[in-house]
Amino acid sequence: MEITRHEMGPRFSEMTVVDVGNAKLLFIAGQVAEHTSLDVVGQTREVLHFIDRLLAKVGADKTNIVSARIFLASVGDYAAMNSVWDDWVEPGHTPARSTIGAKLIHSEYKVEIEITAAIKA
Amino acid sequence: MEITRHEMGPRFSEMTVVDVGNAKLLFIAGQVAEHTSLDVVGQTREVLHFIDRLLAKVGADKTNIVSARIFLASVGDYAAMNSVWDDWVEPGHTPARSTIGAKLIHSEYKVEIEITAAIKA
Amino acid sequence: MEITRHEMGPRFSEMTVVDVGNAKLLFIAGQVAEHTSLDVVGQTREVLHFIDRLLAKVGADKTNIVSARIFLASVGDYAAMNSVWDDWVEPGHTPARSTIGAKLIHSEYKVEIEITAAIKA
Repeated sequence: MEITRHEMGPRFSEMTVVDVGNAKLLFIAGQVAEHTSLDVVGQTREVLHFIDRLLAKVGADKTNIVSARIFLASVGDYAAMNSVWDDWVEPGHTPARSTIGAKLIHSEYKVEIEITAAIKA
Repeated sequence: MEITRHEMGPRFSEMTVVDVGNAKLLFIAGQVAEHTSLDVVGQTREVLHFIDRLLAKVGADKTNIVSARIFLASVGDYAAMNSVWDDWVEPGHTPARSTIGAKLIHSEYKVEIEITAAIKA
Repeated sequence: MEITRHEMGPRFSEMTVVDVGNAKLLFIAGQVAEHTSLDVVGQTREVLHFIDRLLAKVGADKTNIVSARIFLASVGDYAAMNSVWDDWVEPGHTPARSTIGAKLIHSEYKVEIEITAAIKA
């Protein structure tokens, strides 16, 4: 068993990886947009791009995702967020998913996505 | 390491299963009621029934659940939700659990439950 | 594969541990303060102390944490919660983390924290 951490800050790491023997489990911190003036479509694109980038650090991609937790500042943005998600997610490899409305930490954030994934060790 | 997906849709799968060697980890998507005119008691019963049904697809049952995340549209429904949960959960096998109030995606939804479970590989 | 449960109640367990072969995965229930008259600083201290105590039951500590989910009753408490978190978290071992605002089950609760961790089997 070994835990490795990627883009580790003093408060949290953007990704932790647990080697459990035959597999590695990836835990990605809740991702939010950098360009917070974007609407939910633009912010979702940015968030999914950040997730792609983090997965790639350990040779993974979106087909490795096993679960996603999506937090929307406004549940009225569900369809708009899904329009981006549906284009992005890999047919034949869709993860388990939960989506809820929640207050996000900065009032400009429209979406936050947290990911669990798995790869071969 | 192998990921299998159950009731896979183009947007998400109802359950993903990760074979990590000696164990399989199960990730069940946030379950909501189909009969949304039901009150929280009826919706919780339906949600827990869906969870039983998904677990059974891989020979698992509620004793395999390791953690549950419960999202309530109204925290005032906590006692009513628990009355159904307490009857359902297996004595001697209760999971870790978190319960919070959140906006759910459709205004008729009263409860959503997300499950992580583990079985022998 | 074996699941063990710590501080098991009839409704939920404070911690479940899954032995997956080379590693054990720990799932800690959402922890809240006991002294609910405390402000968010005091409640965060209490919550993190409960997490330390649960981890210690299986010989783990905060360096084993791989992900944390923080629920704040008021997102305006983000800085105050972080002031306690930043003092507590182990440099070089920060977990993935998500923080959202949510309604907590009792109106006096200011913060709830859910933890996933990993140790050698």
